[in-house]
Amino acid sequence: MADEAAVRAQADTVRRLKQEKAEPDEIAKEVAKLLEMKAQLGDEGKSKFVLKTPKGTRDYSPKQMAIRERVFNAIITCFKRHGAEVIDTPVFELKETLTGKYGEDSKLIYDLKDQGGELLSLRYDLTVPFARYLAMNKITNIKRYHIAKVYRRDNPAMTRGRYREFYQCDFDIAGQFDPMIPDAECLKIVHEILSELQLGDFLIKVNDRRILDGMFAVCGVPDSKFRTICSSVDKLDKMPWDDVRSEMVEEKGLSPEAADRIGEYVQLHGGLDLIEQLLQDPKLSQNKLAKEGLGDMKLLFEYLTLFGITGKISFDLSLARGLDYYTGVIFEAVLLQQENDHVEESVSVGSVAGGGRYDGLVGMFDPKGRKVPCVGVSIGIERIFSIMEQKVEASAEKIRTTETQVLVASAQKKLLEERLKLISELWDAGIKAEMLYKKNPKLLNQLQYCEDTGIPLVAIVGEQELKDGVVKLRVVATREELWSLQGLLRHVTFQFFPLRSSPEPRSTVPSSSGESPIAWPP
Amino acid sequence: MADEAAVRAQADTVRRLKQEKAEPDEIAKEVAKLLEMKAQLGDEGKSKFVLKTPKGTRDYSPKQMAIRERVFNAIITCFKRHGAEVIDTPVFELKETLTGKYGEDSKLIYDLKDQGGELLSLRYDLTVPFARYLAMNKITNIKRYHIAKVYRRDNPAMTRGRYREFYQCDFDIAGQFDPMIPDAECLKIVHEILSELQLGDFLIKVNDRRILDGMFAVCGVPDSKFRTICSSVDKLDKMPWDDVRSEMVEEKGLSPEAADRIGEYVQLHGGLDLIEQLLQDPKLSQNKLAKEGLGDMKLLFEYLTLFGITGKISFDLSLARGLDYYTGVIFEAVLLQQENDHVEESVSVGSVAGGGRYDGLVGMFDPKGRKVPCVGVSIGIERIFSIMEQKVEASAEKIRTTETQVLVASAQKKLLEERLKLISELWDAGIKAEMLYKKNPKLLNQLQYCEDTGIPLVAIVGEQELKDGVVKLRVVATREELWSLQGLLRHVTFQFFPLRSSPEPRSTVPSSSGESPIAWPP
Repeated sequence: MADEAAVRAQADTVRRLKQEKAEPDEIAKEVAKLLEMKAQLGDEGKSKFVLKTPKGTRDYSPKQMAIRERVFNAIITCFKRHGAEVIDTPVFELKETLTGKYGEDSKLIYDLKDQGGELLSLRYDLTVPFARYLAMNKITNIKRYHIAKVYRRDNPAMTRGRYREFYQCDFDIAGQFDPMIPDAECLKIVHEILSELQLGDFLIKVNDRRILDGMFAVCGVPDSKFRTICSSVDKLDKMPWDDVRSEMVEEKGLSPEAADRIGEYVQLHGGLDLIEQLLQDPKLSQNKLAKEGLGDMKLLFEYLTLFGITGKISFDLSLARGLDYYTGVIFEAVLLQQENDHVEESVSVGSVAGGGRYDGLVGMFDPKGRKVPCVGVSIGIERIFSIMEQKVEASAEKIRTTETQVLVASAQKKLLEERLKLISELWDAGIKAEMLYKKNPKLLNQLQYCEDTGIPLVAIVGEQELKDGVVKLRVVATREELWSLQGLLRHVTFQFFPLRSSPEPRSTVPSSSGESPIAWPP
Repeated sequence: MADEAAVRAQADTVRRLKQEKAEPDEIAKEVAKLLEMKAQLGDEGKSKFVLKTPKGTRDYSPKQMAIRERVFNAIITCFKRHGAEVIDTPVFELKETLTGKYGEDSKLIYDLKDQGGELLSLRYDLTVPFARYLAMNKITNIKRYHIAKVYRRDNPAMTRGRYREFYQCDFDIAGQFDPMIPDAECLKIVHEILSELQLGDFLIKVNDRRILDGMFAVCGVPDSKFRTICSSVDKLDKMPWDDVRSEMVEEKGLSPEAADRIGEYVQLHGGLDLIEQLLQDPKLSQNKLAKEGLGDMKLLFEYLTLFGITGKISFDLSLARGLDYYTGVIFEAVLLQQENDHVEESVSVGSVAGGGRYDGLVGMFDPKGRKVPCVGVSIGIERIFSIMEQKVEASAEKIRTTETQVLVASAQKKLLEERLKLISELWDAGIKAEMLYKKNPKLLNQLQYCEDTGIPLVAIVGEQELKDGVVKLRVVATREELWSLQGLLRHVTFQFFPLRSSPEPRSTVPSSSGESPIAWPP
């Protein structure tokens, strides 16, 4: 009988053989053995059912949802401030829709099992589905946002907010427009959102794929190696230059001289001054692509100056971005480490937003190859959640997870019917109300429930009050008793009563002489 | 060389052989042929890339999203009114989490491809993930809602709002409480939501799994056939009794006498009177389960009477619900056909909400089998969307898809910089503003854009106004010119200006003598 350890060992064997590119027959034999062991374990392992979410995913508790909603609201408010519409697309796409869009990252795509019918994959980002949507509906002009989950079979690092299922918040502008105006707006949006969320100091790095490609050309990188060398440069935020250089030279076969020339350029970062300097660079200025890119970068910085946000923008030649589909401006926002934080990384905590221009993507879907230029930004919401959660955890802030305004309670036994009638009227009047699902709850338990969940008011049904045709209303925090409900509930909205404090402090219950002609219960 | 028609014909052949339960060898031979034809077509068909969403799914356009948001808001407002918290779970679960929960419907579950690691399936509903969440976090007490997409490999009927990817809006109450109080609240919620959405007249059918099981027992159905006979009864809303009867007798081997006895019961529907009558029924009243169910049904109707909603509730012995996990009360809301509607179905347009009590589900996940009683309701939002969309389509209502308050426009050329500066200030002041991404747009085009998208105000930057230090603000609908922006923008929020109509009609532009000391541009 197989045990779990044996299955794991066998799985390791199979993995090793695959890595070593062993004979297919040999691999097949070991795979068959593994499957048999797994099947055996399946029978035996029924009772060992593991209670968990899939690797790299998580549930959101009500408290986490409350924080999530805050962050979403800030972001959506910003997107709407910029006049964006909203769309939604299915969580999976035809497999072929995603094929050839993500370069080396394609291996991280989740495929669905072939159960007959179409071959499907879970979306890897929101950009490719957006391009598919534009081409399919022949839309040449739209400014939209889309907030939804995407899926990557990556190595999760959940404490740092890296998951296999995670939200993306995308804002994109599609259409043929005058250069760099939409691009500048995307950067303004990143600036607004990161400022609004108060995550600490941040920096938005900007570059342009055309400048990168021009740089590769003048450094002597063969055309065929542009994309793969670009992938190497993209690792500069995680690896030191020496490691990136040896990847270029040893793994990717670049000449050491070309690598060293790249090494000089990618150290450069700055603002308008650097752009001017590179426009004068004897080699770069001779390259058509680089010149175009630098010209547009200059224009972009002029617009960013008008927006007053250049203080947090850095033109950075080491920024490359992983994805294949970018064609122009690219950018990435990083949070800067506070001096008093004790974290391993020395400078940046990591990317919290990124994006760029992708003028060719929609054309890949259009039967006639018609292009729709696009530029967009994606907010890295999961990392932001993680930071916000830590902040809330560190503070003493108590987060309410419901919006209930009043608990309908009873002071004595046998008042369930009266409570049901009262709460029904409150609901019908649009008031957020709860009651305990007990026939005869203790008053103390009911008040405790208010304390625990932050319900500000309690409406107490009591025998004497019923006779008097009133209901006591008490502010939980102060124990102050407000107005009695003189049958008001049937016809007057509850908003009438102050929900936070009493404008006319009344600590005594008024007598049963009704000011209102309608008595409760009716 | 294979063509697409030949591939389709071959696929039909394979399907037919499978249906006819042909020899496995023969099927395998034809499948191999099909795969080869497909592979050939694959090479050739590369250029024939199909631009579509997967079968049974759809995109939501901005207009559809606007309608969707309205419906969601109505539902969420109701859930919050009842004091619910909100949670979220991953879109996929471990395959074994879903195993054995859905009875005959399990074949409709989407599995993910085995790419190494865990075996995963897309969630089929939100109830099983909820139960898994409770067991995993040892929660014994919660009232939560969850709005998310679920996945079923069903035959789509998209015009009737039946999709393979669709939203569910679930509200559930978990915990050990006094009988039928939470159950009654679920029905109250259905009543509130369907009333609020104004979809037309509706009826909520109610039954109890214990009454059904008791009924099966006294009709002579063997224990082992309870669930499968229950599935047959569940089809009564789509099939006439005669067909259901022959399914029971011919396919499922029930005795004709037992079927006929069931046939008599399932015709019954009514209210408290029917409950009283069945409590006196000589056979049913002898069955322990049925008696329990009827007793609780009576209590439920008493509570619903207090809520004042029995007018739309019908105790209906033909209601069975498909899912395995229900243990007590079950219910389903249907829209009733308006007499003047010309649709095929004679009585009900179909289910728009459903739910019930499932006291055993959480225990299936708990290592020690500890039970957490639950009752909940799921709103069938897709069908509701479809109806709302048709309504909007039929009316002349124009739906705005953005919230933009003001378009920043220019009256002459070469004012891009001024527009960028102004819009930046508006955004920073929290005002929803757009501009056209053109260096020199025509004023007419800018005004037309406002008309098309419903932007109520236009702020016009002009040469003379720049000299005067003002900006013209015009109401698009009336062409009335409001206040000039006397530099107000830097420090005063735009909400100051009336967004719908002008309270003090001023048709002349005030002179440049500023009331405010701050001039714009600064």
